[in-house]
Amino acid sequence: MRDGAQAEGISFTVNDKLRIVQRLDEFGVKYIEAGNPGSNPKDLEFFEKVSLLKLKNAKLTAFGSTRRAGIMAKEDANLQALLKANTSAVAIFGKTWDFHVTDIIKTTLEENLNMIRDTLSFLKEQEKEVVFDAEHFFDGYQANPTYAIKCLEAAADAGADWLVLCDTNGGTFPSDIMSIVSEVVKKFTIPIGIHCHNDGGMGVANSQMAVEAGAVQVQGTINGYGERCGNANLCTIIANLQLKKGLKCIPEEQMKNLSSVSRYVSELANLALNERDPYVGNCAFAHKGGMHIDAINKNPLSFEHIQPGLVGNERRILMSEVSGRSTILKRIQEITPWIDKTSPETQYLMDEMKRLEHEGYQFEGAEISFELLVRRALGKDTRFFNVKDFRVICEEHWQDDYSASAIIKVQVDGVEEVSAAEGDGPVNALDRALRKSLQVFYPELDKMRLTDYKVRVLDTGQATAAKVRVHIESTDGEKVWGTVGVSTNIIEASWSALVDSIEYFLYRNHHLTENKDKKTDVV
Amino acid sequence: MRDGAQAEGISFTVNDKLRIVQRLDEFGVKYIEAGNPGSNPKDLEFFEKVSLLKLKNAKLTAFGSTRRAGIMAKEDANLQALLKANTSAVAIFGKTWDFHVTDIIKTTLEENLNMIRDTLSFLKEQEKEVVFDAEHFFDGYQANPTYAIKCLEAAADAGADWLVLCDTNGGTFPSDIMSIVSEVVKKFTIPIGIHCHNDGGMGVANSQMAVEAGAVQVQGTINGYGERCGNANLCTIIANLQLKKGLKCIPEEQMKNLSSVSRYVSELANLALNERDPYVGNCAFAHKGGMHIDAINKNPLSFEHIQPGLVGNERRILMSEVSGRSTILKRIQEITPWIDKTSPETQYLMDEMKRLEHEGYQFEGAEISFELLVRRALGKDTRFFNVKDFRVICEEHWQDDYSASAIIKVQVDGVEEVSAAEGDGPVNALDRALRKSLQVFYPELDKMRLTDYKVRVLDTGQATAAKVRVHIESTDGEKVWGTVGVSTNIIEASWSALVDSIEYFLYRNHHLTENKDKKTDVV
Repeated sequence: MRDGAQAEGISFTVNDKLRIVQRLDEFGVKYIEAGNPGSNPKDLEFFEKVSLLKLKNAKLTAFGSTRRAGIMAKEDANLQALLKANTSAVAIFGKTWDFHVTDIIKTTLEENLNMIRDTLSFLKEQEKEVVFDAEHFFDGYQANPTYAIKCLEAAADAGADWLVLCDTNGGTFPSDIMSIVSEVVKKFTIPIGIHCHNDGGMGVANSQMAVEAGAVQVQGTINGYGERCGNANLCTIIANLQLKKGLKCIPEEQMKNLSSVSRYVSELANLALNERDPYVGNCAFAHKGGMHIDAINKNPLSFEHIQPGLVGNERRILMSEVSGRSTILKRIQEITPWIDKTSPETQYLMDEMKRLEHEGYQFEGAEISFELLVRRALGKDTRFFNVKDFRVICEEHWQDDYSASAIIKVQVDGVEEVSAAEGDGPVNALDRALRKSLQVFYPELDKMRLTDYKVRVLDTGQATAAKVRVHIESTDGEKVWGTVGVSTNIIEASWSALVDSIEYFLYRNHHLTENKDKKTDVV
Repeated sequence: MRDGAQAEGISFTVNDKLRIVQRLDEFGVKYIEAGNPGSNPKDLEFFEKVSLLKLKNAKLTAFGSTRRAGIMAKEDANLQALLKANTSAVAIFGKTWDFHVTDIIKTTLEENLNMIRDTLSFLKEQEKEVVFDAEHFFDGYQANPTYAIKCLEAAADAGADWLVLCDTNGGTFPSDIMSIVSEVVKKFTIPIGIHCHNDGGMGVANSQMAVEAGAVQVQGTINGYGERCGNANLCTIIANLQLKKGLKCIPEEQMKNLSSVSRYVSELANLALNERDPYVGNCAFAHKGGMHIDAINKNPLSFEHIQPGLVGNERRILMSEVSGRSTILKRIQEITPWIDKTSPETQYLMDEMKRLEHEGYQFEGAEISFELLVRRALGKDTRFFNVKDFRVICEEHWQDDYSASAIIKVQVDGVEEVSAAEGDGPVNALDRALRKSLQVFYPELDKMRLTDYKVRVLDTGQATAAKVRVHIESTDGEKVWGTVGVSTNIIEASWSALVDSIEYFLYRNHHLTENKDKKTDVV
């Protein structure tokens, strides 16, 4: 939570951080490095509040650096701030690459060793558990192995509880990590940790190589957030090590929460999750090629390295031109298990699917539009509102601003409501006007938001008269769903995807509320 | 381009694929696996068209599988389709995991060996260069090493030119890849290749471990596109191997184009580039932490594993406005070679570029909009018309059709012209009305048409109020060009790209005609 917060675009509030700590604690994380009180005074407020939480698994760790050159540890303002955080464990980074000592912090190699020794001794006197982060250790070791090891020895002599080897610039190769960590593990009796960055796209592999070489602590971040290309992605590493190497990183029963923890943090970070992320992404177990889908239907092991349910994710059979009848039937059965190959509805739905795909619909990533299609066809109507009519106007006057506005009339249970709204563009104007009308009937709509919007031209030969497919992604903070609309009119296509998305939200919300009510009844 | 196109959300047109082939060829890629004619008939159209291109570096490869069980290779329809692609090289995948043979394609282990042998012999008789992709090789080797090796031997006996070991399910660990590839390399004299997937987040590291173990061909995709979590990311691997291990993957002078190739493909795929991608992402050399920025200012080596310029990327110091002047200057000089660092126009263009990029403009693949920007700034005006004002209306009435119409007023040489048009959507209506007005002055406009239209949401957190980037591709039948527009209003963004495109056409046409006239004079 300290290094991850250094990612571009992340700016956690104190409250965000408190929520993440609670979630990671439940998840079973052992240490949470939660802030740098010396460089960020806001972090002290966080440490004060977090101390009121009852944590079951996690030790909170405050982060800081070795004392500045030429002063005593107890005189160092940053170390004083660190102590104020009042955590039982602290992580201290120190230089171990000679070039950084002489050219960046501009002191002598000897003084840097003193800085490590003094700082750690001072903190051990305060009875802290001390994690020593050997910054740039791998670059340092490759440049001057004798000095890099001396730095670790200084930390060990001063009582460090952990020596964590950092690939701070993220450019080291797995085989080098392997051989260097092996050397260090041989030399020290203190437990060794690893801290990797992803600048060479090897953060995960490097962390695991270190574990194979004897490291017993892995530092990383949820979703790999962090400066530049990020830190090693803990979501991937936890699953790899626990499911494939049998190493216990978190309590076994928590593994199925991996995907939701990942999404929870991405929501609070307000960064879209990379859907291709291993284990947790929406694409991680999505199959598109026809041969793959055939094989998956015979045995999922054929094209899946683990069962998606183990990490709380699910298999998705993508709807695309390459998928056959059996795929479509299977998707229909997921929604309505009583339907089979011979049901009268099946042929109708097959034909409808074929017609829509021919028109340019693609249900891949827009499974919700498909689900609504099935529900409507089976008479399980999900219409929560009717739109009577709408009009959108966009105009520009000579050297004037552009403007977009929409007027819309909806009808819910026979009651009509007319609203108008301006927007940053025609779709935004429509979206706003529609919500304005509907919130009169469904105030819960403020929980739902659109997170992505894509347009694809289908028949490029038709130029601007081409058919377009609009894909909209929405969330209520828990679940992410996709809907699709196709038309030669981009407004109509957007509109259709928008309406599907809102209908699904209302349907889901209605359903969840109903179930909750039922539970209460039973109690 | 075959495996990458199996990524969720990717659906290339034939024209997209032709453009990508040309770009990868210039970039120096040696083999481009470009389609699977057996499973996708649309690919044959592509292979026919691509054969007309003069490629400098790349060998095109068509992809297919071993013959079906129980028939002769020459009777196999997929192999016949493969031959129709008429490429000098073909890639054939065959089963090497015993479980897949018995449980998925449901044949005998012996028949599978025959299928490999027959298929490759048949293709060698046709004088093809044959790449044998050993599907699921690592899973197969771990389950039944004797059989997995027998499959490779069958391929070798039949004359395979390459044996490519595939980690199809993407779950193998780097150390296992290392030891298995080493074993295989020892056993065969044929060159060995590696094909990794990223389901364990180790696609890049695994590919590199295989190279360390003796593999000499790496199969992967630009930006790591591919089924599920994707294939091994070639942008990362090329940079890692060439810059750090001194292995020549592409011509040295092409390395600086790595970032633009990555972005070019992501634009055509219409998938947002993951900005945290190593080497090529916007965040790859972005520094946020205060200490890091301090150190970077003293010596960039302190927190950067390579110089960003080597891969055509640039350092970004977040929260401050220092941006890569030299990159921009270089792009300007490509259009106007007489401009240098000290020219008075340079500062203006720098500021303008910075402002536009900050707004979300992206000139990759839309070089024409950039060229027009430079020409306008240098007073080489390309304004062939002024638009006075326009209005677009889209409406739907209850159970009625949608409609879209536009009214527009243009001015050319002081003469005004008002036109109105209906369209299949608002952009089409605008496009038609604009052409109607302009054709009064420029009848040659009927030679130009728009061929593609793409929309990308830039700040997804903003939902339908988000800024969008519209990318338009146009052609006059000879040349294809791209233009770009950015706005929160999709109509405005489309409009701006549309106007750029038409202006470029008129400019180019004017220029060509002028030159032709001159030539006639000389003759």
